[in-house]
Amino acid sequence: MKILVAGLGLMGGSMAKSLKRAGYSVDGFDRREVLSLAVKEGAIAAVAEDFSVYDIVFVALPPEAAIRFIDETRFAQNAVVADICGVKGEVESAVYAKPRNFRYVGCHPMTGKEVSGYRNSAEDLFDGASMIVTENEKTDEDAVRLLEDIFVKMGFGLIRHCTAQYHDKKIAYTSQLAHVVSNAYVKSRTADGYVGFTGGSFQDMTRIAGVDEKVWTQLYFYNRENLAEELETLLFELGKYADALRRGDREAFAALLKEGRERKEKLDREK
Amino acid sequence: MKILVAGLGLMGGSMAKSLKRAGYSVDGFDRREVLSLAVKEGAIAAVAEDFSVYDIVFVALPPEAAIRFIDETRFAQNAVVADICGVKGEVESAVYAKPRNFRYVGCHPMTGKEVSGYRNSAEDLFDGASMIVTENEKTDEDAVRLLEDIFVKMGFGLIRHCTAQYHDKKIAYTSQLAHVVSNAYVKSRTADGYVGFTGGSFQDMTRIAGVDEKVWTQLYFYNRENLAEELETLLFELGKYADALRRGDREAFAALLKEGRERKEKLDREK
Repeated sequence: MKILVAGLGLMGGSMAKSLKRAGYSVDGFDRREVLSLAVKEGAIAAVAEDFSVYDIVFVALPPEAAIRFIDETRFAQNAVVADICGVKGEVESAVYAKPRNFRYVGCHPMTGKEVSGYRNSAEDLFDGASMIVTENEKTDEDAVRLLEDIFVKMGFGLIRHCTAQYHDKKIAYTSQLAHVVSNAYVKSRTADGYVGFTGGSFQDMTRIAGVDEKVWTQLYFYNRENLAEELETLLFELGKYADALRRGDREAFAALLKEGRERKEKLDREK
Repeated sequence: MKILVAGLGLMGGSMAKSLKRAGYSVDGFDRREVLSLAVKEGAIAAVAEDFSVYDIVFVALPPEAAIRFIDETRFAQNAVVADICGVKGEVESAVYAKPRNFRYVGCHPMTGKEVSGYRNSAEDLFDGASMIVTENEKTDEDAVRLLEDIFVKMGFGLIRHCTAQYHDKKIAYTSQLAHVVSNAYVKSRTADGYVGFTGGSFQDMTRIAGVDEKVWTQLYFYNRENLAEELETLLFELGKYADALRRGDREAFAALLKEGRERKEKLDREK
């Protein structure tokens, strides 16, 4: 089985390393410097030249590049092509916009780091993590089963199945909104000289503030409606606390906190 | 040296245990069930009966109770009385509202847990944490030095000095606002069924959502102006992202993300 990982950044590099650890031989494609490092380290067996010889192609490129790559590349007949973008609806739409000779499966590994690039990739990045597989009525079931088997061997701890639309709605909230809040949170001037004035809440709130604006603007705008809706919801909820503070209404404020605490307790029971 | 810890919840219980580990003998005061457990476990040497016999009294009660306790208790002449409330301005004002025969020092240990109560207290809770000591022109320097010596022996890793006003402004942002955001964040209906749809961002964002509304409403309303200002700042900043999304303005959105990333990188250099 010939496998290609296109894009050897943090995620793609980690996929190559994790696949290698699982016993697969993987080829890679990226800029020349990255490729020579990946070959030297043994993360990839060879540099891909003809993309049409692979049984499985993992596309680990930024969203716009991933869509273009899938759209324009000549893959082998019946090849399994799986992207790992953080939004799935737009990729799926682009893939199914015309007939394809390959079998597409949308994937999104639920893990990452605050740093990027091949040099930060690691074979154990996916250990115990969740992998989301998006499907619709056109999805080839054998392709999904083949990938699932590989994902388990790569160390993923949980595989979730859903539609691209369900994925995008969930991710707008669990990940995209969190990154926006974190990115906005650091902008207060009061943050200067915070050292010694926090026991961890501030660090947790701002850990993911430093997003790469190029990649994340693509992700956000491919999921604009969902993200806007979640952001409006949060602004609406936060506005209630501000109102209660302004009015000096302690009871209303306590009721807001209680509602959030009870909601948090309910969510904790889902774990 | 006779030491009392008044209030043996998560923080007070941990103080008693940490003081004991450091070689001090400590008496305690709390509800009867807590006291018998603390005596049985050896966290306190004895139950306090006459509060006027102690050289040092740590007040680890909720804000309103702490202020009342300090105001109404007869302490020994020159006793060092230190509260550990999460707001300092209101406590300090209440203390200095009339002449006192004791020496007051405001303290705030920068650590905690998402759970409360004596049963969750631990001798190592303060290990490596920061302790903020608030002072003004009336503060007794010997009392501060005495406490600092004890804090170092308890395991604190950093001691910061500032005024109560500076403390309250910083804490409104690094801690209080973070708890409000977390408490509001969980309220989206999209949170239901989040398991498998997050790699950690959601957990970090919502870890501290479950605040005790009774204690925290007290803390928030003792620091209402500062918290309101920080919350308005965050609402203003978040509103810019919502506007850019609504307008479909990718460049503006990317610029907002870039500003946040650069700010985060600047703050990380402070560490």
